Amino acid sequence: MKLENDLLLRAARGQKIERTPVWLMRQAGRILPEYRQIRNALSGFKELVETPQLAAEVTIQPVDILNVDAAIIFSDILVVPESMGLSYEMVEKKGPYFPKTIKTSNDIKNISIPDVHDNLSYVFEAIKITKSELKGKVPLIGFAGAPWTIFAYMIEGQGSKTFSKAKSFLYREPELSHQLLALITETTIAYLKAQISSGADLVQLFDSWAGILTHQQYEEFGMKYVHKICDAIHEAPVTVFAKGAYSALENMKGLNCETIGLDWNMSISEAKTIFQNQKTLQGNLDPCVLYGDYNLIKHKTKEMLNSFAGHRHIANLGHGVYPDISPDHVKCFIETVKSN
Amino acid sequence: MKLENDLLLRAARGQKIERTPVWLMRQAGRILPEYRQIRNALSGFKELVETPQLAAEVTIQPVDILNVDAAIIFSDILVVPESMGLSYEMVEKKGPYFPKTIKTSNDIKNISIPDVHDNLSYVFEAIKITKSELKGKVPLIGFAGAPWTIFAYMIEGQGSKTFSKAKSFLYREPELSHQLLALITETTIAYLKAQISSGADLVQLFDSWAGILTHQQYEEFGMKYVHKICDAIHEAPVTVFAKGAYSALENMKGLNCETIGLDWNMSISEAKTIFQNQKTLQGNLDPCVLYGDYNLIKHKTKEMLNSFAGHRHIANLGHGVYPDISPDHVKCFIETVKSN
Repeated sequence: MKLENDLLLRAARGQKIERTPVWLMRQAGRILPEYRQIRNALSGFKELVETPQLAAEVTIQPVDILNVDAAIIFSDILVVPESMGLSYEMVEKKGPYFPKTIKTSNDIKNISIPDVHDNLSYVFEAIKITKSELKGKVPLIGFAGAPWTIFAYMIEGQGSKTFSKAKSFLYREPELSHQLLALITETTIAYLKAQISSGADLVQLFDSWAGILTHQQYEEFGMKYVHKICDAIHEAPVTVFAKGAYSALENMKGLNCETIGLDWNMSISEAKTIFQNQKTLQGNLDPCVLYGDYNLIKHKTKEMLNSFAGHRHIANLGHGVYPDISPDHVKCFIETVKSN
Repeated sequence: MKLENDLLLRAARGQKIERTPVWLMRQAGRILPEYRQIRNALSGFKELVETPQLAAEVTIQPVDILNVDAAIIFSDILVVPESMGLSYEMVEKKGPYFPKTIKTSNDIKNISIPDVHDNLSYVFEAIKITKSELKGKVPLIGFAGAPWTIFAYMIEGQGSKTFSKAKSFLYREPELSHQLLALITETTIAYLKAQISSGADLVQLFDSWAGILTHQQYEEFGMKYVHKICDAIHEAPVTVFAKGAYSALENMKGLNCETIGLDWNMSISEAKTIFQNQKTLQGNLDPCVLYGDYNLIKHKTKEMLNSFAGHRHIANLGHGVYPDISPDHVKCFIETVKSN
């Protein structure tokens, strides 16, 4: 089906665009009352993730309500470790929790590369329904966690300020770490390919915990596998968002991908100098700006757009939108990009 | 009193040293069973902070037990907002909590610049006792939080992943923010001067939450006040440790201070290029390395020392030592630096 609005895909490929496309990380979620209504009628977050018709519905909400230039499939990066044998719980107000974690080489023996088509069929089903209901209005983004971030949860078992269990596992067991990272990478490649064949028009890798590794560790245990994934995906444009990976930007120049996500701390001018219009940059308004009034939002959004001027760009926040932001403030951000 | 071991001070001033001095952020604290014994006999963390004889005792413990080249006074950065009118509680396993926070201009009217000599006398008393009991063995480090970090707690009221209340206050109320930051700055200058006149041989500013601001915000609301403090303190060498402030390193070249602390994510080679031996660099072993075995600790410590070679350097971790690290592993780090 031909897309009515393919700005995102053209921007990702560095083709001519009439204006900068815009979407928000975490746009499908708690900021919308329409989302909360659906979510509150269910047993929990996981039921929503695992019910394709409902996942599709909340995926499309921000397209209709906020007028963004792309939908991103409603799901969670932790479906991948679950498909490999470590199920997760989503604890209200606390975040993810894994009853079983990886501690030894024996634990890794119990980890398998799943048949994703079988194990994660609910995601592909949600993508198919979304595509059919979007009727080509905007592109659909698929996604996965980058291997280091998934690894971090599999070892740590939950969110953490320091992820010191996961980090010390890298130091103490480098070979086992590479074994596990390779398994995650293979699963992720199959998972993203299946998302694309189900209808995702572009896929994004989230390396949410990139920033807690040293430069050397991130090169060895993080970027290495991001490279592998980018090298394997040819079916659709790929975006890599490695939060806090300041010192890896230079390395990312060599990634086989179309777009690099910048967080709000990353310097736009430095990124422009590094990427020289050879890749598209995505981002990077500070999500806290959306707590401000309309004037502030407009001013800061225009300032951000001006800073990216002359470079391939997709407008977004520098992180997921915070759950207590008013949808009207999000709309102001989106309208400011569109009317710039 | 002449110091028996003044390596830290000579290193800070860029003078000749026989070997690299070493100490650890959070060396006085939970890693030592001797600390836990004292702490467990008390009502809580604050009683220890506010009892000079005991604060002095735990300050000296790591000098005797770990053989570090400096003591750092046992205290907390939050004594400053408390002295200004916002008392804090230290909640076991959760961290600091402020029953009252700053929300409006009226709240700021209730904030005052205290007579630190009066309000924070317990800190100066602890410094005097420590100096007397140290008998010149090693220098004593005093410290304070940098204004942005103190401001962040005064607005947010507790630790936070995003500090979105504090950050959005900066966006929404820039003038009030500057008002409050100026009050904190003035208090901090008086506080550090009084620490020095009580006996502190060097003072360190901790800007723990520097890394969550955009480059522009940190320049305007963070570094500006760090500059003011450095410009005001002439009585002893000053160290500035701004965690995560990658993009501010260039600006820090112009600080009126002797030493810049690097976190473990910061690139040593980049810092060497920026600072050109005009300042001393402090840091920056990844604290998670201390979870490894002795071989790993030795290897990574030597690697770190080699990376700093040719530049003024004080060895430390890139962050506070984690509370569950074995003291023997800390000793291995210290011995490796000393015997290098």
